[in-house]
This record gives sequence, C-alpha cells and structure tokens, in this order.
Amino acid sequence: MRDSRIDHIGIATENLDDHDKLWKLLGFQHGGDEINEEQGVRIRFYQSAHNSEGRARIELLEPIDESSPIHQFIQRRGVGIQQLAIEVEDIDTTLAELIGAGFIVINNSSFEGANQTKIAFLHPSSTGGVLVELVQHS
Amino acid sequence: MRDSRIDHIGIATENLDDHDKLWKLLGFQHGGDEINEEQGVRIRFYQSAHNSEGRARIELLEPIDESSPIHQFIQRRGVGIQQLAIEVEDIDTTLAELIGAGFIVINNSSFEGANQTKIAFLHPSSTGGVLVELVQHS
Repeated sequence: MRDSRIDHIGIATENLDDHDKLWKLLGFQHGGDEINEEQGVRIRFYQSAHNSEGRARIELLEPIDESSPIHQFIQRRGVGIQQLAIEVEDIDTTLAELIGAGFIVINNSSFEGANQTKIAFLHPSSTGGVLVELVQHS
Repeated sequence: MRDSRIDHIGIATENLDDHDKLWKLLGFQHGGDEINEEQGVRIRFYQSAHNSEGRARIELLEPIDESSPIHQFIQRRGVGIQQLAIEVEDIDTTLAELIGAGFIVINNSSFEGANQTKIAFLHPSSTGGVLVELVQHS
C-alpha cells in the first residue's frame, strides 16, 4: 500500500490576519504570505512551532478579488474549512486510479502548484462532500 | 511556545463505509469502529498506512440517531468536514488562555473524550468559521 499523509487543511478567510491570534496562541507559526494569481488567492501556512516533520499544516486562503474561487466559496458557504490536501507519492498514477475507480475529478491531469508541487482536485460530489486536493512534493 | 499539532480532521457522513474506497485507495487504513453514546455518533479513524507517527488522522462521524449533533450538522451543512482537532500539551491551561483572550468556547472546562483523552470545543464564531476541538492525550 502506498505512503500518503494529510499535508494541509485549507481554510477560507476574508483576511489572513483574522486567524493569527488563534493559531499563535495554540502554538503554531507562519511563514511569508504568497500570492497565487491563477487561483486568485493570498496564501499563508501555519505549522507546528516545534517538530513539524510529517505534521499537517494549516493553509489560509484569502481571495484577492471577486473572481477568486475562494470568494465564491465564502459567498456560498461562509468562511471556514474549504479543502483537505493529501500528499501522495505519485500523483499521476493515483489520479488515474481514482478516475478508474469512478471518482469525479476536477482536473483530469495534475498541474503545477506552489513551491514546485504537482496538484489536482477531486470533486466533493464523489468524496463525501470533501474537496480533496492531491499534492506531490518534488 | 508550546508544542501543538493537528491531531485529526472530523468528517460528517451518513455512513462510515461511504468513505472506505477513497481513503483505502489513497493509502490510509482504519481501526475498529467505536460508538460515543453521549455525542450520538459512530466513529472510525483512518490513518496513514505507513509511518503514522505525528501524522494527522481522519475521523469519520456517523450519526446514530436524529438527536446527534452530527445529524443536525448534516441537515444544516450537508456531509463533509465538520471539525479540526488540535492536540495540545495542557488543555486546561490552553483553554483558560483562549477564554482570557476573548475566544468563545463551547465548553468552559475540558471533559473526557474517547481513549482517555481530555477534550473541549471552541465555537466557530470566534475561530474564523472553524469548529476547533482541543484534545489532550493521556
């Protein structure tokens, strides 16, 4: 059986700073903010302040404009958890297996994500209501 | 700064087995199902099949009757991610600090969870729309 793990939890927010007091008080720290123009989001990761190896991170997602899928998500569902990202060893093989098993994918093939990752999304309609991101780190 | 990590992601489902194909294909395995009568839920954890140390798990939550908070969650929001659980070293101190910092808690003090844990919940209204569970393992 292949090796996979929860990589991060994506949380939609109107403002990245809205979460800062909570996660710092709970013992997490963040790196620099990044902008993903294609997805129309400003992104900030929070991770365990100690011993972050193998641990899942929190990814905050703030829309940069009204065309952002995150803006649309917030309009529809409100702020809160938006996605669950799973790190896989071989995203293309995994994606082909998922398609073969009847899962509905948003992307038929993986594409380039932030930080030299390859990513793809599974549609919530076939995953029990969970927007699942697959991510392969280089 | 204290040591904390993401312990698990709680997902509300009508039926625990609905998720089995997805998580097994992605390389996760589950233990036995448990029933929590007080919360009115049947619970199943999925974890990385290899090297699960420090890695976050998936907690599936199936309502056992209509009075279950999970049934009410599904009625209101549909199936999908319901909570984010953070493991903390000292739940009572952390909870007191959160209350002192103005966070709205569902429980003013921690209580006994499954598997000799102590748990408490923060209300989504002060955590950016995220139902946060705090958990201290014994």
